[in-house]
Amino acid sequence: MLPVPFTNVKITDEFWAPRLKTNREVTLPIEYKHCKKSGRYDAWKWKPGKPKEPHIFWDSDVAKWLEAAAYSLATHPDPKLERQVDAYVEMLEAGQGKDGYLNSHYSLVEPDKRWSNLRDCCELYCAGHLIEAAVAYAQATGKEKFLDVMCRYADLIDKKFGTKRGQMRGYPGHQELELALVKLCRITGEKRYLDLSKFFIDERGRQPHYYDREAHKRGDEPRHFHFRSYAYNQSHLPVREQKEVVGHSVRAFYMYTGMADVAAETGDRSLIAACKRLWVNATQKRMFVTGGIGPTSANEGFTIDYDLPTEKAYAETCAAIALVFFAQRMLHMDADSQYADVMERALYNGVLSGVSLSGDRFFYQNPLAVFPALNEFRTHHESSRRQEWFGCACCPTNIVRMLASLGGYIYSQGKSEARINLFVDSSAEMKVGKQNVQIQQATKYPWNGKVKVTVRPERPAEFTLSIRIPAWCRSASLSVNGKSISASRNKKKGFARIKREWRPGDRVDIDLPMPVERIEASPKVRQTCGRVALQRGPIVYCLEEADNGNNLNDLSLPKDAKLSSTRKKDFLGGVNVITGKAVRRRTSDWNRELYRPSQSRTETVKFTAVPYYAWANRAEGEMLVWMHEG
Amino acid sequence: MLPVPFTNVKITDEFWAPRLKTNREVTLPIEYKHCKKSGRYDAWKWKPGKPKEPHIFWDSDVAKWLEAAAYSLATHPDPKLERQVDAYVEMLEAGQGKDGYLNSHYSLVEPDKRWSNLRDCCELYCAGHLIEAAVAYAQATGKEKFLDVMCRYADLIDKKFGTKRGQMRGYPGHQELELALVKLCRITGEKRYLDLSKFFIDERGRQPHYYDREAHKRGDEPRHFHFRSYAYNQSHLPVREQKEVVGHSVRAFYMYTGMADVAAETGDRSLIAACKRLWVNATQKRMFVTGGIGPTSANEGFTIDYDLPTEKAYAETCAAIALVFFAQRMLHMDADSQYADVMERALYNGVLSGVSLSGDRFFYQNPLAVFPALNEFRTHHESSRRQEWFGCACCPTNIVRMLASLGGYIYSQGKSEARINLFVDSSAEMKVGKQNVQIQQATKYPWNGKVKVTVRPERPAEFTLSIRIPAWCRSASLSVNGKSISASRNKKKGFARIKREWRPGDRVDIDLPMPVERIEASPKVRQTCGRVALQRGPIVYCLEEADNGNNLNDLSLPKDAKLSSTRKKDFLGGVNVITGKAVRRRTSDWNRELYRPSQSRTETVKFTAVPYYAWANRAEGEMLVWMHEG
Repeated sequence: MLPVPFTNVKITDEFWAPRLKTNREVTLPIEYKHCKKSGRYDAWKWKPGKPKEPHIFWDSDVAKWLEAAAYSLATHPDPKLERQVDAYVEMLEAGQGKDGYLNSHYSLVEPDKRWSNLRDCCELYCAGHLIEAAVAYAQATGKEKFLDVMCRYADLIDKKFGTKRGQMRGYPGHQELELALVKLCRITGEKRYLDLSKFFIDERGRQPHYYDREAHKRGDEPRHFHFRSYAYNQSHLPVREQKEVVGHSVRAFYMYTGMADVAAETGDRSLIAACKRLWVNATQKRMFVTGGIGPTSANEGFTIDYDLPTEKAYAETCAAIALVFFAQRMLHMDADSQYADVMERALYNGVLSGVSLSGDRFFYQNPLAVFPALNEFRTHHESSRRQEWFGCACCPTNIVRMLASLGGYIYSQGKSEARINLFVDSSAEMKVGKQNVQIQQATKYPWNGKVKVTVRPERPAEFTLSIRIPAWCRSASLSVNGKSISASRNKKKGFARIKREWRPGDRVDIDLPMPVERIEASPKVRQTCGRVALQRGPIVYCLEEADNGNNLNDLSLPKDAKLSSTRKKDFLGGVNVITGKAVRRRTSDWNRELYRPSQSRTETVKFTAVPYYAWANRAEGEMLVWMHEG
Repeated sequence: MLPVPFTNVKITDEFWAPRLKTNREVTLPIEYKHCKKSGRYDAWKWKPGKPKEPHIFWDSDVAKWLEAAAYSLATHPDPKLERQVDAYVEMLEAGQGKDGYLNSHYSLVEPDKRWSNLRDCCELYCAGHLIEAAVAYAQATGKEKFLDVMCRYADLIDKKFGTKRGQMRGYPGHQELELALVKLCRITGEKRYLDLSKFFIDERGRQPHYYDREAHKRGDEPRHFHFRSYAYNQSHLPVREQKEVVGHSVRAFYMYTGMADVAAETGDRSLIAACKRLWVNATQKRMFVTGGIGPTSANEGFTIDYDLPTEKAYAETCAAIALVFFAQRMLHMDADSQYADVMERALYNGVLSGVSLSGDRFFYQNPLAVFPALNEFRTHHESSRRQEWFGCACCPTNIVRMLASLGGYIYSQGKSEARINLFVDSSAEMKVGKQNVQIQQATKYPWNGKVKVTVRPERPAEFTLSIRIPAWCRSASLSVNGKSISASRNKKKGFARIKREWRPGDRVDIDLPMPVERIEASPKVRQTCGRVALQRGPIVYCLEEADNGNNLNDLSLPKDAKLSSTRKKDFLGGVNVITGKAVRRRTSDWNRELYRPSQSRTETVKFTAVPYYAWANRAEGEMLVWMHEG
């Protein structure tokens, strides 16, 4: 099974379509401006002694913006945007070395230091992002120049790195190139790009350790590595021996994505097994309820199993996006709905929270509780306000490309199967075997779980239509052309599989009831004991001060409290809110004492919860996902 | 009123006496060894090019050890210990400059940089600690050499600093000298030491700011100050304009102590008012239930009102000790039991937790919850194990002097009043006016609230005996020579005041019932909402993994759960434990899911809570003060 490419999917729904429009019309242009203003876009014009010296990761920021522009151009032609991309490609080509070398920092600032610090300096990471952008741009526009430029660079890297005499046995300190090379292989048909990706993956973590040798060569002590352990960049062990998701989360999940890509191409069982082990550890022990990952700012990543803080959660926007990538790859290696469940959880919550409803402000970190009064003691990455831009601008440029390519995550196609992974009002042109099939979903998802699917094969044909039954849904029902069928009896690994001869206009009705659920986390998650999160359908909710006053932590939800969901069309871009009654201690009972013998008299208060992704779009205030219960 | 000096108090009780013995016989010698081994003790012998170069704060560590040695020598003569002190004093005298200058770092390592960076470099801080030690040593032994050396240094400082032409208008970057100079004034009778202390206090925070000018002079940009705001060292405003306790907690509370000392000597009303305001802010909004202060490691100090984390609490041992100092000064300026209540809270909990029962291991940080699995992601300051020593050894040397001088905190004496501040089985020789009075307490406090006080004036005399009625006690009862009197009717600012003609052998019986209390914190403390701490008498309790298994956060105390206190003589050096029944989720109900719709079935489990001060004296494991309730 392969994803149906986003170019074949038309998103028409009330939830995503306005967001994608904002992404296109606000986010893309504003990020162009930030890239111009900060010097990123014009990095190749920089001259020594001038300000805005190209930073080691700048190419990657522009690259993600280019990739997003490409996705946008594929579905919404825009000459001005296309000129902006082309102009950058011109600069890139002009800046490329005769040998194919291409990195604005190392080409212009430190030409003698190329390849000398793979561990810290993002050189191969930038290459990967530029390759992804070039692939997307070729797919979107048919223009090949960008791709040619990047192939020349990839060829240089392929010559430099490898196990042959005279080659370097290094690998990216920030993984990304691995997955990009598989994309490059797929579009060019050149297997050596896949082999190079496989080399990077196989070489990683071997002893003697490349980063030790590299450090010595620089005259550096390996033990002076800022992050101490190579677990930071997942090179502490060969990848097939890794059992826990560790270190920097974005590095980790880009690598797992690349591993899954290589495994999908090669069928490498030990690599597939490693991917599955890491998936299990991540999703059963190290993932926030929002689909965010990475608890701590210390390494922008992981600590230990079940360490899932609320206020201190790092949950970088990029990391949730990387989890979506990995989930999508796993889903196409193993048709199990758990991968799509996680993908959905991240997309609707921890990814989407990364950008404001207005499309022009961004979160780097996505905590699960916020107390703005502490902002002055935190960095702007950790602020309770979305920011316009960051010195390290990975998150804004990542979310713009994620949203622009969303169409590619909804459907999958195979020889005898068409599959619906996500519920989005949309239509898709698929190839099921040799047959062209149009699948259309009509739905108000995620606010309503009713989905009408219309199947339109060119002509009647037997194949399986697989429909994901979300893990959050306890009582799905299905009917085909009005005739009820058992969802559970037809379910395999979480997908209802309907095999029949499909005729143009056949209809499947899906009903996924969406009561408000109280979610509890494992008792091993110490930070959420005694607390519940509210979820309805795929949407995780939170309390905001704007609706509920402050001291949100003192609200407690009685175990028997009724919870209602109400549609509010003109609120926060159109959402369902959850309302109910909770209790809180009477503050009027308190004088000035800080501690006293417990005598808590409570009062009943109404509360309103809003979707987590929509928080921080009003007055700044407290926010809380996990609410006390009892 | 003045404290009855510790030299006149004999502590005989089962709680403190064994601790003071350990302090004397284990802690003092072991700290001497650490000071020798690390190079601190022999700093004055250091030669350029040799290892163990004297660090800018080393003098202060040895000074606190010297001070502790002095207290110990006063009550327990020990020729070996006295020789160790004398030998150091010899080195000190030999190292002293002709002008009186005395700092091992600046004298030996950077002689040209004296007085150039008061903001960061602890020069005046070291002076203060050495003065405190010299005063204590003179009081303890009658030997004057150390005091003479320090007077010469104080005279130099007095010459260097001031408002006269040619003098520097600087002040300590780490406050401490202010309170030391008041001690020096009291022992020598030299008012200029008090004036110098007052100068430092009055000058602090004035504009143009001394640290700005000083930085410029060094060729440094003031805005490059690592801690950004001068709130870090409480020089952001003149001290009389300060309303909140901010910045580094030890700096803050040493300064407040110095302010109170100067205010007591001068009667300066604006200074008294500032002290009271800061006290109120500290104890009503910024103090842990253990009497610890300072929530964050970022500045080793304060953030905002009601920010009182549990697991992340910094609560430095030194800061709790500094709070005891400030409380004691306030108590002697204003006979209000709230000061003694806080002093007691800190002493029995957040101070005492700083040292192991064995006396040879120390906490720098005293968090209110601990998850040892996270140790590898934290510094050794933040470890869940007490450490043998620290590179910055302020806490071990502070607690050894605190305990050695404990006797000085129990009683106060005035013209017509004798006062009991703390309940400790002990006897004290006091001066009430011109009358010698012996007061004796017989009690099993803090495990039992019955206290028998015997009053023995030389001859019958009228005066007031004031006895603190602790704020934790809801129903104190009192009797004099067997005849009951009303505690509440005789109470003034928290002290029961019994004025009568006292005759030798008169007895007061105090009964302070000690039920187990559930303590709640203000709803504004977000980290403890929905939770209670257990307290009995002055002792705050915690749960440890050794008694209760792990996942302590998942324990929940039903509101109606019965709580019992049981004496355990041979457990943790003799404690009362609290036992009861709590509920926890059945982990057997959980498969591998991380999140699920709430369906929590619970099981009832017995739990045991131990005194907070005694935690981490067994197998390493989780610890929790604030327990879920409901």
